[in-house]
Amino acid sequence: MQLTPKTPRFREIIRHHLHRQEFMKHIRCELTVIEPGYVEAVIELDTIHQQQIGLVHGGVTATIADVAAGFAGFTLVGEDEHTVTAEIKISYFRKGLGQRLRAVGRVVKAGTSMHFCEADVFCVQADGTEDLIARATTTMAVIVPRM
Amino acid sequence: MQLTPKTPRFREIIRHHLHRQEFMKHIRCELTVIEPGYVEAVIELDTIHQQQIGLVHGGVTATIADVAAGFAGFTLVGEDEHTVTAEIKISYFRKGLGQRLRAVGRVVKAGTSMHFCEADVFCVQADGTEDLIARATTTMAVIVPRM
Amino acid sequence: MQLTPKTPRFREIIRHHLHRQEFMKHIRCELTVIEPGYVEAVIELDTIHQQQIGLVHGGVTATIADVAAGFAGFTLVGEDEHTVTAEIKISYFRKGLGQRLRAVGRVVKAGTSMHFCEADVFCVQADGTEDLIARATTTMAVIVPRM
Amino acid sequence: MQLTPKTPRFREIIRHHLHRQEFMKHIRCELTVIEPGYVEAVIELDTIHQQQIGLVHGGVTATIADVAAGFAGFTLVGEDEHTVTAEIKISYFRKGLGQRLRAVGRVVKAGTSMHFCEADVFCVQADGTEDLIARATTTMAVIVPRM
Repeated sequence: MQLTPKTPRFREIIRHHLHRQEFMKHIRCELTVIEPGYVEAVIELDTIHQQQIGLVHGGVTATIADVAAGFAGFTLVGEDEHTVTAEIKISYFRKGLGQRLRAVGRVVKAGTSMHFCEADVFCVQADGTEDLIARATTTMAVIVPRM
Repeated sequence: MQLTPKTPRFREIIRHHLHRQEFMKHIRCELTVIEPGYVEAVIELDTIHQQQIGLVHGGVTATIADVAAGFAGFTLVGEDEHTVTAEIKISYFRKGLGQRLRAVGRVVKAGTSMHFCEADVFCVQADGTEDLIARATTTMAVIVPRM
Repeated sequence: MQLTPKTPRFREIIRHHLHRQEFMKHIRCELTVIEPGYVEAVIELDTIHQQQIGLVHGGVTATIADVAAGFAGFTLVGEDEHTVTAEIKISYFRKGLGQRLRAVGRVVKAGTSMHFCEADVFCVQADGTEDLIARATTTMAVIVPRM
Repeated sequence: MQLTPKTPRFREIIRHHLHRQEFMKHIRCELTVIEPGYVEAVIELDTIHQQQIGLVHGGVTATIADVAAGFAGFTLVGEDEHTVTAEIKISYFRKGLGQRLRAVGRVVKAGTSMHFCEADVFCVQADGTEDLIARATTTMAVIVPRM
C-alpha cells in the first residue's frame, strides 16, 4: 500500500508533540524512526520497567506498542488533525526480558476517519539478538481536536 | 458467579508482590480494594501521566486496566501459581481528564488454565463525579512460574 | 447514557435492511427487540449451527454478537448513514450447548464517526435457564455509503 | 519459528473432524491447505453470504478467519487434544466483494496450554487479483475434551 503523508512537515509536527509527551519521557520511551506510515520506538530497560518477578511490565509493552502504532498513524494525518487510540489489543507471546524494548509500528490500512495500525514489540538482548514478545492491533481515530 | 479463592492468604500474597512491582510504583498506581475476583486500583493524576495535549496517556489507562484485571484474576489462583496477561483489549470511550484514575477489575469467568477478566477505568473529578473512559477485556493465563 | 435516535423511523429502516440480509436468513438469525441503542437477536439452534463435537460453532456466536451489537449501533444513525463493523473481539467463556442462542447488543458510547457497542451471548436451555457463553466488544464505524 | 506436529496423523484427524463440521458445510467453507501451523480455507461467494447491501457479511469473514486460525493451531496438538477459541479479534479493513473468500491461518506462537494464531482474509476477484479485507488475532486454548 502506498502511504502518502498529507503534509511534508509530519516529522516536525510529531517532534513538536513529543516535546510535551510527559508520560513517554517518564518511562524513557523515544522514537528512533519516523517514516510515512512507519515508526519505531525504543526503551532502554531498567528496574523501573519491571513487574514483581523482574520481567517487563505488560503496561510498558502496551504503552510502547500504542506509541509506535499511534505515531505511525499520525504520520499520515493533516496539519489540523490528530490520531487518538479508539482501541488496541495486545497479545503477549513471550516474557519480556532483555536490555532494550523495540517497537515497530505500521499503518495497515489508512482511511478518512480511522487508520488501522499494528505494532510488533521485540526484546533486544545484549548480544543484539531479539525476540518478538508481543503484537498489537489498533484502530486509530482521526480527529480534529477541539481543545 | 461464586468466586472462591484457592488460598485464604490471597491478599497477603498480592501485597507481597506489590512490594516489588517497580513499574506500578514508578507510575504511582496503588491497589485500594482486594476481594475475591475483584480489585480496584487508583492513580492520583499528575503531569507525568499526560500525553501531548494534557490528557491521560493511553498507556497509563492500559496499565491500570491490566493491573486491576490481572490482580482480580490473581486473587483466585493457588499459592504456587501466577497470572500473566495473555492478551488485553482496551476500548477508549472518552478522553481522560480529571484528578484521579480509578480502575475496577473483575473476573468474569474463572477456569483452570485461564481466567477471563475485565476492567472499567473511570476519571474522577475534583467534585467526586466520575466518567467511564475505557473498558478492557482480557485473557489471563494461569501459570506455575519457573523462574 | 441517554441514547436518542436521529430518526423516528429507525425500526422501519432496520426492518427494511433485514429483508435483504441473506446471511442472517441463511443461519436463521432474527431480531426480536429493537430499541434505541439496544437490540436482541435470537437463533433457534439446530444441527446446521454445530462444529465437530456438537457445540455451537464459534462463527455462529461471532455472527449473532456482530448482528446484535451492529444493529444496536444502527438504531442511532441518521437516515442516510450506515454502521459497519470496524473491529470486533469475542471472548468465549463457556461451550455453547442449548436450545436457543440469544444475543443482547448495546451501545456503550455513541460518537460522531464511531459507536462503541457490546454484545452478550447466552445459551438458553429447554427449561428456560440461560448461561452467558460469550461477550463481544466492537467499534462500529458510522459511514455514508457510496454504493 | 519451527512448528512441529505432535502427531504425524494431524491431517487425517483434521479431515475426520471436518466431516462432522455442520456449520462449515452450511456456509460452504473448505480447507484447501493443511500444513504444520498453517491452514488455508476457502468459500466460493454466493448470495447466501451477503449482508443487506450485497457485501460479504462480517459473520462470514469472522467464521472463515476463526476456522483458518483454529485449524492452524489444531495441526500442532496431540491426538487426545483439541483447540477451542478462547478469544478472537477481527479488524475489517475493506468491504468484502468478490468471487471467493480466502483465509490464511498461521500459528504465531505455540505453547503448552494456548496457541496464539492469526488469520488474513482476502477477497479474490474473477481475474485472480486479491485484496486483504480483514485480519484476525486469536488465543486458542489447548484442551483435553471431556465430552
